[in-house]
Amino acid sequence: MTDSVPGPVHPMPTAIAALRPLALTDVTFAPASLLGEWQRRNATRTLPHCVDQLDASGALDNLRRVTGEVGGAHQNMWFADSDVYKTLEAAAWQLGRTPDDAALRSFVDSTAALLAGAIDADGYLNSHITLVKPEQRWQELHWSHELYCAGHLIQAAVAAARAGVGAELLPTARRFADLIVARFSAVDDVDGHPEIETALVELYRVTGHRPYLDLARRFLDLRGHGLLNGERFGSAYLQDHVPVRRAQAVAGHVVRQLYLLAGVVDVAVETHDDELLDAAHRLWDDAFGAKTYLTGAQGSRHRDEAFGDPYELPPDRAYGETCAGIASFQWNWRMLLATGDARYADEMERALHNVIAGSTALDGTHFFYSNPLHLRTGHDGSHEDAPSQRLPWYSCACCPPNLARLVASLSGYAVTTDHSGLQVHLYAAGTVETTVDGSAVRVSTRTDYPWDGRVELTVATEAPLVLALRMPGWCPVADVRVDGAPVQAGAVRDGYLRLRRDWSGGATVTLDLPMPARVVRPHPRIDAVRGCVALTRGPLVYCLEQADLPAGVTLEDVRVDPAAPIAVDRLADIPVVLRARGAIEQPGSAALYTASAPTAPRTEPLALTAVPYFLWGNRVPGPMRVWLPVTTTG
Amino acid sequence: MTDSVPGPVHPMPTAIAALRPLALTDVTFAPASLLGEWQRRNATRTLPHCVDQLDASGALDNLRRVTGEVGGAHQNMWFADSDVYKTLEAAAWQLGRTPDDAALRSFVDSTAALLAGAIDADGYLNSHITLVKPEQRWQELHWSHELYCAGHLIQAAVAAARAGVGAELLPTARRFADLIVARFSAVDDVDGHPEIETALVELYRVTGHRPYLDLARRFLDLRGHGLLNGERFGSAYLQDHVPVRRAQAVAGHVVRQLYLLAGVVDVAVETHDDELLDAAHRLWDDAFGAKTYLTGAQGSRHRDEAFGDPYELPPDRAYGETCAGIASFQWNWRMLLATGDARYADEMERALHNVIAGSTALDGTHFFYSNPLHLRTGHDGSHEDAPSQRLPWYSCACCPPNLARLVASLSGYAVTTDHSGLQVHLYAAGTVETTVDGSAVRVSTRTDYPWDGRVELTVATEAPLVLALRMPGWCPVADVRVDGAPVQAGAVRDGYLRLRRDWSGGATVTLDLPMPARVVRPHPRIDAVRGCVALTRGPLVYCLEQADLPAGVTLEDVRVDPAAPIAVDRLADIPVVLRARGAIEQPGSAALYTASAPTAPRTEPLALTAVPYFLWGNRVPGPMRVWLPVTTTG
Repeated sequence: MTDSVPGPVHPMPTAIAALRPLALTDVTFAPASLLGEWQRRNATRTLPHCVDQLDASGALDNLRRVTGEVGGAHQNMWFADSDVYKTLEAAAWQLGRTPDDAALRSFVDSTAALLAGAIDADGYLNSHITLVKPEQRWQELHWSHELYCAGHLIQAAVAAARAGVGAELLPTARRFADLIVARFSAVDDVDGHPEIETALVELYRVTGHRPYLDLARRFLDLRGHGLLNGERFGSAYLQDHVPVRRAQAVAGHVVRQLYLLAGVVDVAVETHDDELLDAAHRLWDDAFGAKTYLTGAQGSRHRDEAFGDPYELPPDRAYGETCAGIASFQWNWRMLLATGDARYADEMERALHNVIAGSTALDGTHFFYSNPLHLRTGHDGSHEDAPSQRLPWYSCACCPPNLARLVASLSGYAVTTDHSGLQVHLYAAGTVETTVDGSAVRVSTRTDYPWDGRVELTVATEAPLVLALRMPGWCPVADVRVDGAPVQAGAVRDGYLRLRRDWSGGATVTLDLPMPARVVRPHPRIDAVRGCVALTRGPLVYCLEQADLPAGVTLEDVRVDPAAPIAVDRLADIPVVLRARGAIEQPGSAALYTASAPTAPRTEPLALTAVPYFLWGNRVPGPMRVWLPVTTTG
Repeated sequence: MTDSVPGPVHPMPTAIAALRPLALTDVTFAPASLLGEWQRRNATRTLPHCVDQLDASGALDNLRRVTGEVGGAHQNMWFADSDVYKTLEAAAWQLGRTPDDAALRSFVDSTAALLAGAIDADGYLNSHITLVKPEQRWQELHWSHELYCAGHLIQAAVAAARAGVGAELLPTARRFADLIVARFSAVDDVDGHPEIETALVELYRVTGHRPYLDLARRFLDLRGHGLLNGERFGSAYLQDHVPVRRAQAVAGHVVRQLYLLAGVVDVAVETHDDELLDAAHRLWDDAFGAKTYLTGAQGSRHRDEAFGDPYELPPDRAYGETCAGIASFQWNWRMLLATGDARYADEMERALHNVIAGSTALDGTHFFYSNPLHLRTGHDGSHEDAPSQRLPWYSCACCPPNLARLVASLSGYAVTTDHSGLQVHLYAAGTVETTVDGSAVRVSTRTDYPWDGRVELTVATEAPLVLALRMPGWCPVADVRVDGAPVQAGAVRDGYLRLRRDWSGGATVTLDLPMPARVVRPHPRIDAVRGCVALTRGPLVYCLEQADLPAGVTLEDVRVDPAAPIAVDRLADIPVVLRARGAIEQPGSAALYTASAPTAPRTEPLALTAVPYFLWGNRVPGPMRVWLPVTTTG
């Protein structure tokens, strides 16, 4: 067993915390499990690909230009330093779990050395400002991303410190953080892109240095007073239109809003600020009550990467940025730790298995930035804003390294503890080895989840303990047995079934989560999918792909009969596909609009095969849709 | 009677032309008619407002900086010269009709003098390049708008020449045009924003100087070979992805595409280029077959102001730029002249009375840039990208002066002639006085169109003549009488009823276009409005506004019963509103997505009042929608 490596987000002992995270290394996913396989692909394919792209894109060279190792002008986005930092963070989490990866260790050490060389004598570090416009330091915060990049540097250093790698990173990050504290404790300024807030709290957690926490809180409270120049997209884009304590709705650029909310929860729990926590609850209700896609994606607008209006959830023009899915997962994790309420874990699961998982190709080296729920027949996918297929990299490359850091640290998000027990949030085959209240606990899990709803947990503890199992929101009723004996369902509270007993002799809990195919209907105010249903099973959203249609059929003419039975089947490498009954309904008229009585469509029956959304676009490229219009007679 | 002033687009005698435009001054709309009132508002409110804004926005000062009259740095958009030119063009058309407007004449003369002073010795004129980056002249054509601005200068000069005002303008524009001919006949370059093409053809029409036409054709044929840097939005945004002769679909930035297509028709008819004309027909079928809103608006995407995919027509996120509606009108006018087919006039009418008319407030000084078909409850209208109300001006101010030039010249688009007769395309009370084949013709029209479908035309001619009356596409059957005697409907061809007779004694044609309220259904591939209908009457699209709902009702909960009768009524200043039967259907569950059986909504009947779309947002600001979900039981 490796040394215990804390994962992302470790609140202080004094913090508000219904639940405490386990160490990253306390949980291991079985290699053949879906999450284990994803982590393997991330380690062997995605992470090395990101490291390669840091060189190919010029992001590392920018920092080498600051040290003088390399000549030439700054390349790439002005915030490309953050690509380096996020990849570093991913590498640190990965090394925390697999410390023997020499190539990765070499990347971390050499990059840490590069950063130690690149940082200014006074502690400042930003290659774009230093190389391109040194006189503008801190002068264009609405757009410069200086504190955003600093935040990602800090997060990388926190990960490295927790994982015990890249020893130079934390001192470098602290030098920059101390400069930021010195500067921003005295002037009223915030960054256009939140990230520094949550990073400073995490740095406080690692160092115990209170000024980091104080500054994070100061940034939260300065924001919303119109300090930022909002000329391009308006102040709501920057969440600068209203102080977060008073905000009634999520607004603006989704990733900015969600990173801000991660910081809100972090500051709230560390400072026992109920008003801030209330704000987080209120904005959560808005986001998940009216502004979230069925896949967990958020953000309806391409133009400003923003949440749309309430119920504005077009499937074809869903923006659903990959980073927003990750940010939602991270925000929900913080809410879960603070409250212990399973609805946050439900949203983590929804996002993880749908929008986040779907953003990476099975080869691990191609990615979606935007994650639509409908790719139209005739779609012009020629531009990276809405390509028809996953691309190897993006001119704004925030998403791939963000995926790498999330997946590398995924085992840190699956299970928590409290004073009396263990809570299982994400189901996957594997093992948990930890201590609860000083006593050793071992849980070994066998399951094919999410393909199958049967989860067997073999528990061995030294002392009595409450094992809490999440009852997913999608599962109205489950069967639970301990060593074969049924357990009363009355024990479910806050979405968890709590089993309190003495496990010292070992016992096996069998959780059976029924996974029938389900027909999901949208709220009637979601105009964009009126008259449609979606097919889901367990936590997975399904979709139709052109690849499974007969030649010549236009996907937009396909209908599903929501009343017909849906069968579960296997298709090549896809463990579970859904077979539904549907029809082709060819329009009776080519007219775009008609005032005459509706012409009956030419209808013929069609057997439908729906595949998991997260696997779309891995076979033959082509149209895809999640929301399926129902048959006229259905 | 004033001197005869040709209006926009006057093909040469040698051009392909099924129809010939009348002079702007041949047609007069009655002051109390909808179009006459619009022209009055344009002349007294919109045009002076635009002139004022040229000063307030700094657009005129930029040109004064070139001459040295004013100091300081260039202000406003880099293509703000075009605001000046479009306002000049509007003023020229207005003076062509009302030559005694001294203030307007003074604006034209002083601005013409300013431009004559600002033009470089070599004929170059662009305030942004000259003031900000003179070394970049012609170097950044993908984004610089140099030829775009030149095109609008030329259009203004053409208008001034036809109207006989601003005598300095045409020589100035020709100096610039001659420089452009000299430069671009030798290098393979095109502008990122089309406009120069149609402008050069119009300049050829005014001057007879063939090199202008040749260069326009050259620009059309150079485009589509990837000459432009398409890094920001891709080459399709610039219509540089495929030569227009081979293009199968409209694509990219809508205004760019439509201005290009205006140039395509202009060059095709002047050079008898059937291949180009075929391309225009093909792209028209695509645009109006799958990419046009019910209001005539085009462009589904805010991000790149682009056409969306086929059938991607979200009503809430409709971009529908005002300038695109105007460009569509202008392209259809060219198609109409070339072919004589009424479907182009139908699209002119649809755009004019809906998207274009709706873009200006009744006060004449507030405008929509984007024209959605649904403003949601809870819409964040805080930014000028999608404001909840019309704004007095925009940071990119292309639309208001574009409206001013269209409306000032509107009488040039209503009626045409050919060798044997007169064709009436747009119905409005007023008079036509012209000559056909050398003989005087006078038509006096009485009608309340578009509020009423009865049109009485009193015709007096010196010689026999074919009077062709457009039978609108929305009107399946009409009643036509001459001096009370019914006319056989068999005489309709290409959408026109043709009445050939000797009108020398005078005769009155009575056209009765039935205008029942109609329930319009969308093509089933327009997913965004599935399960919805729209209410229309005559050429007018109707909408629901929050102002007409009981307090506390959410617009998105309102349903319409499409089978119930719809009554026609009057409401305050609105001559015709529609009274329909509907319901409030409050969602049975607040859940965003649900897999349980659909909960029946709480339903109560509701009497609906629909108002003309073009009048929305002129009373109490609030939500609005064109497409109405039908009652669950409807």
